[in-house]
Amino acid sequence: MTTSMSPTLQLACDLISRPSVTPEDAGCLELLGQRLEKLGFTLEPLNFGEVQNLWARKGNQGPLLCFAGHTDVVPSGPEERWDTPPFQPEIDAEGYLRGRGAADMKGSLAAMITAIEGFLAEHPDHQGSLALLLTSDEEGPAIKGTVKVVEHLEARNEKIDWCLVGEPSSTERLGDVIKNGRRGSLGARLVVKGKQGHVAYPHLAANPIHLAAPALAELTAETWDEGNAFFPATSLQISNINAGTGATNVIPGELEVIFNFRFSTEVTAEQLQERTQALLDRHQLDYQLDWTLSGQPFLTAEGQLVEAAQQAILEVTGKPTQLSTAGGTSDGRFIAPTGAQVVELGPINATIHQVNERVKAEDLNQLSQVYQALITRLLAQ
Amino acid sequence: MTTSMSPTLQLACDLISRPSVTPEDAGCLELLGQRLEKLGFTLEPLNFGEVQNLWARKGNQGPLLCFAGHTDVVPSGPEERWDTPPFQPEIDAEGYLRGRGAADMKGSLAAMITAIEGFLAEHPDHQGSLALLLTSDEEGPAIKGTVKVVEHLEARNEKIDWCLVGEPSSTERLGDVIKNGRRGSLGARLVVKGKQGHVAYPHLAANPIHLAAPALAELTAETWDEGNAFFPATSLQISNINAGTGATNVIPGELEVIFNFRFSTEVTAEQLQERTQALLDRHQLDYQLDWTLSGQPFLTAEGQLVEAAQQAILEVTGKPTQLSTAGGTSDGRFIAPTGAQVVELGPINATIHQVNERVKAEDLNQLSQVYQALITRLLAQ
Repeated sequence: MTTSMSPTLQLACDLISRPSVTPEDAGCLELLGQRLEKLGFTLEPLNFGEVQNLWARKGNQGPLLCFAGHTDVVPSGPEERWDTPPFQPEIDAEGYLRGRGAADMKGSLAAMITAIEGFLAEHPDHQGSLALLLTSDEEGPAIKGTVKVVEHLEARNEKIDWCLVGEPSSTERLGDVIKNGRRGSLGARLVVKGKQGHVAYPHLAANPIHLAAPALAELTAETWDEGNAFFPATSLQISNINAGTGATNVIPGELEVIFNFRFSTEVTAEQLQERTQALLDRHQLDYQLDWTLSGQPFLTAEGQLVEAAQQAILEVTGKPTQLSTAGGTSDGRFIAPTGAQVVELGPINATIHQVNERVKAEDLNQLSQVYQALITRLLAQ
Repeated sequence: MTTSMSPTLQLACDLISRPSVTPEDAGCLELLGQRLEKLGFTLEPLNFGEVQNLWARKGNQGPLLCFAGHTDVVPSGPEERWDTPPFQPEIDAEGYLRGRGAADMKGSLAAMITAIEGFLAEHPDHQGSLALLLTSDEEGPAIKGTVKVVEHLEARNEKIDWCLVGEPSSTERLGDVIKNGRRGSLGARLVVKGKQGHVAYPHLAANPIHLAAPALAELTAETWDEGNAFFPATSLQISNINAGTGATNVIPGELEVIFNFRFSTEVTAEQLQERTQALLDRHQLDYQLDWTLSGQPFLTAEGQLVEAAQQAILEVTGKPTQLSTAGGTSDGRFIAPTGAQVVELGPINATIHQVNERVKAEDLNQLSQVYQALITRLLAQ
């Protein structure tokens, strides 16, 4: 099959065959580094603890276009549930490249490399600079990966102007959706205190489940905002609720509730915290509330990067693109606060984190063309 | 100390020194049987599985006054937390008999025996009959104990007219409270079904915690009845609530809620079930609800037994008695449905099921006198 022979697919297969489950890199960065070094990139390995990262840059003057991505993948789960071994890439009869990471996001990494190779061959005397920010800690705790590299760059005042994150943003066809922002993520652990006792003597106890029930009903019914043109409405979800020891005759002494806000740019994390506390106080609860801010919302509403991405997709696929801020968090949350324009553009995400992860082989070839068209629009003289 | 030498205390010590943790009897029934046999009782051991029970009766004609009790005790817990070894009874300097079962209810068993001995010595030609219904399975599952003996008696149409259960009913002084009934106990396990998903995509999931929250707020605020002259209002308590796997980014697929009704004679178990289901249906929940009826409420509102108990207490202690239906369940729930009048009367319950269980030695001597006065009022010619 001709498709399987393209440089993009060859490189994608080479990457997939390296079982780089977070935080392992399994030699992926070395492979990518070798290709970039040949193109004249300067490699700067930035390792924090067991996490390997790579900052690779070509050119000293601005503007700087950076491709960001991760070599790590989520675990395969039981291999026997896969139709083909997860770390033995193959292109099936229907033209799909199969394997863990095919869509998230080794296919994108391969497309970035071949796009850059193609661009540099056609435009050796381009303006600006190119860089890659690669990490092996995106799917895991994400505390020793991109966030650390960004800190490192900021410390020496090295600024990214445009950042293309290779996350699989497409939903039904390549390039139908690009992400120009992400919602914020704010986590909370609430402990409502009562007084333990026997179910036969409720007047001697204070049931924290009963005390909290009206507050939880109100909390889950609350409208936090209406969203805006770029963001859906802010959403609260309770992920865990626990009280009781299993004994059916004991009124528990505490209730634990874990919940998470995915929030738009219409509210701030501080406002959500204040409103939540005011609601709990109104119900006169005795509680402890601990917050974890995983990511501020970010938005690249308009500008050269969004425009270049939309036009590159139209040029290669002939189809328009939707902007979206839906979904989980990505490493874009660490890069956007530096002032960079950030867009996520990658293959179809239908099978990511699942068994039989796969992506159309032809989509990866097209993705390389889209990336090359994007670079050309931004950096060709 | 003279107190320690009374026959009641000697027998109580003999019983406490037998470590009869449920379902073990540890020779208690044999010891009690020997004393009863000497008095002319006919012994009928009724063993079901590992549980030993004893039905002992003297006399063939009615009315039948039965003393009911249990030889088993709850575990001691860590013995090092006790001031004295739990299965080595002793009377301390303050006049307390110490040991596991001193109050619940080996002291009562000893008082029953010496009361019957005293009564028969004074009234060899009494009317009616006397019986003891003793089990080693009251503190445990209670499915092979009193309930089985009662079935056995009903099968041969042997009827108890008056039943004195030796549960520790007193709160501050001996005889201040007797129980002339108990609330019913109805347990429920509710599983509310939703649809699992990622917290970032709530529109693709259905959070069972959110769906159930308004229903739980309503359920815990509901007034089920107002109680009556003998019963406090019916109470619902949620003992356990659980949803979530611990992951903070997953919307759980199910919510489990375990709750229990302690209910008065103003409602029936069927009515509580119907009202609960109607409430859940009104909230349009997809749920599964499993019920466990642990005991119907029972009440001995008035009659010869309650009157005899009150007068016996007044005669011996000089103080009046309150009727109560508060607290947990007891084996009275199995005996009352046969039509028997049932009263619980025993020592102070302040230390039951705790470390350093103890009862005033003098209270047990008085309890024996109260029991004897009660028998005399009901059966003396």
